[in-house]
Amino acid sequence: MNHKWLRDPCFAIDEESCQRAREHQAQLTKPPGSLGALETLAIRLAGLQHKPLPSAQQVWISIFAGDHGVAAEGVSAFPQVVTGEMVRNFASGGAAISVLARSLGAMLEVVNLGTVNDPGELPGVRRAIIALQTHNFCEREAMDGAQLEAALRAGADSAAAAHAAGAQIFIGGEMGIANTTSAAALACGLLGESPVALAGAGTGLDAAGIQHKAAVIERALARYPNDDDALAWLGRVGGFEIAALTGAYIAAAQMGMAVLVDGFITTAAALAAVRINPASRAWMFFAHRSRERGHARLLSVLDADPLLDLGLRLGEGSGAATAIPLLRLACELHGRMATFAQAGVSEA
Amino acid sequence: MNHKWLRDPCFAIDEESCQRAREHQAQLTKPPGSLGALETLAIRLAGLQHKPLPSAQQVWISIFAGDHGVAAEGVSAFPQVVTGEMVRNFASGGAAISVLARSLGAMLEVVNLGTVNDPGELPGVRRAIIALQTHNFCEREAMDGAQLEAALRAGADSAAAAHAAGAQIFIGGEMGIANTTSAAALACGLLGESPVALAGAGTGLDAAGIQHKAAVIERALARYPNDDDALAWLGRVGGFEIAALTGAYIAAAQMGMAVLVDGFITTAAALAAVRINPASRAWMFFAHRSRERGHARLLSVLDADPLLDLGLRLGEGSGAATAIPLLRLACELHGRMATFAQAGVSEA
Repeated sequence: MNHKWLRDPCFAIDEESCQRAREHQAQLTKPPGSLGALETLAIRLAGLQHKPLPSAQQVWISIFAGDHGVAAEGVSAFPQVVTGEMVRNFASGGAAISVLARSLGAMLEVVNLGTVNDPGELPGVRRAIIALQTHNFCEREAMDGAQLEAALRAGADSAAAAHAAGAQIFIGGEMGIANTTSAAALACGLLGESPVALAGAGTGLDAAGIQHKAAVIERALARYPNDDDALAWLGRVGGFEIAALTGAYIAAAQMGMAVLVDGFITTAAALAAVRINPASRAWMFFAHRSRERGHARLLSVLDADPLLDLGLRLGEGSGAATAIPLLRLACELHGRMATFAQAGVSEA
Repeated sequence: MNHKWLRDPCFAIDEESCQRAREHQAQLTKPPGSLGALETLAIRLAGLQHKPLPSAQQVWISIFAGDHGVAAEGVSAFPQVVTGEMVRNFASGGAAISVLARSLGAMLEVVNLGTVNDPGELPGVRRAIIALQTHNFCEREAMDGAQLEAALRAGADSAAAAHAAGAQIFIGGEMGIANTTSAAALACGLLGESPVALAGAGTGLDAAGIQHKAAVIERALARYPNDDDALAWLGRVGGFEIAALTGAYIAAAQMGMAVLVDGFITTAAALAAVRINPASRAWMFFAHRSRERGHARLLSVLDADPLLDLGLRLGEGSGAATAIPLLRLACELHGRMATFAQAGVSEA
């Protein structure tokens, strides 16, 4: 195992570009502060992109797909075969994230990390197969060290491809039946929380289903010490796609590329990333507040104030994609509005 | 005065298209309900547009500008000359709403209803001058009957132009120094609320300024009976641009065109519209929760659940424009995602 790269420093943030962006905002023809979060988005992006007039036009979306051994415990409303079926749906353009990527003109990559129902070679799908699925984490660790390293690397590879393609914003999405169970278990491990606080309906469990899911997580957690070793927890109860997201978020921060975090599962991966490499937090924007039960707690731990609150709970990166126009409009307003002097408008 | 048209029936809503849209949503490759508000947006639009696959591509923005006699009471952080200066800024493309309209490919019209500092003829600006400004409503009614009728008609004319141009969504914006004072006074009149509950910082008053503003409104309200006659209150304390918005919202609903309401001032106009013609409510979407103090109360009275909460308080229709991509993405997802059958994806 060589996870040493995960602790390499993140890219520097340019405070001078932030300051210049802040001064520029103050000169635009509007009451100071009246564009609220759209102003702070532009100012933060200025620091990340090292230029006072940033852009969010170039967007890259990587969807990481992987199956979960814990699906055998009956924790999902959908059958496990759906993971592979959805990989095919991503590739053929019919999934929510496919439609959103087209509408936004975003680059879309699907990464198959291992599905029990293997859709095989497909256009737009990168095969980085680790195994058919993770182990059932109620019985043993979800991943061994080599599998965890491969998953983290697969995510970093996607971030590198996005960066090489000129992406200004990286979105990670996920697909994997039972992965809200894995994400909730990971969050419980990292936060020392009880599963009843973080296990939710996922794709549509009823109250009894959620109770069962929490009990399954409880059983898995009992196998391990009460530590907060993020890498260890990723291996114990994580998923291939979740570890890939963690690797992608850290690598993006190291390369100097902002990431827009989606919902519950991706936020669990982001929490792991921040625990492993705290400086990666500065590169994260949070897209939305998901309806999945545990998300609010994760956002709070990360001191994240997401842009949208639309009751979404689909995953696939769909909430992050939906928030992209806000980043773009923030940059357009920042870069294209007239100043008081240019427009001959009187100040307060 | 002939306000009779204001009570003409609104366009019918097609419940069958709503139902077909709802059934279509249930077949798309995602857990039922997992796209939250994006699903309900598409379903509502289906009923309004009388087709199961609606669209929000064609957007029309009318910015109504007018000056307020009550500005003489020192209720704004900006000088009154700014209203006319901003009309020029809208026309030359430097204002926030100009940038947003370009980014969205929206049609943009500016309607000058009367400004003390008259920018004259400008490209893209329709002159529908009623007077230099309203009367100072602390001293007499803001508008006489003919002025009120002209303002309502000017708004209806804009809605008609938008409808003729094929607009699917109508956005009304406003510009007028002191118009949060007028909007707060209108809302106080309609709701029987105290000015201290609804007067806010506007373009940037401090606490003492807000207290003074509330006292100014209190003085005006004392002149009138405690009735809830919306048309009367529009004339007593409204503004040309606020009455135009009310007329535009009602006319849009009568023509069968959805409106996306912006912030505090437009919501006050929308409340007046709903009081005059209750069926117009069904045609209104609410874009965002403004930081202006009284907005939350108005949204609550209208049972409105806005799409965004970004701390905006600029006006000009800017918050509504910022929410347009959400309507568009909702329609794209609804119309372009594959069904379970098409994609060969297993159901729950």
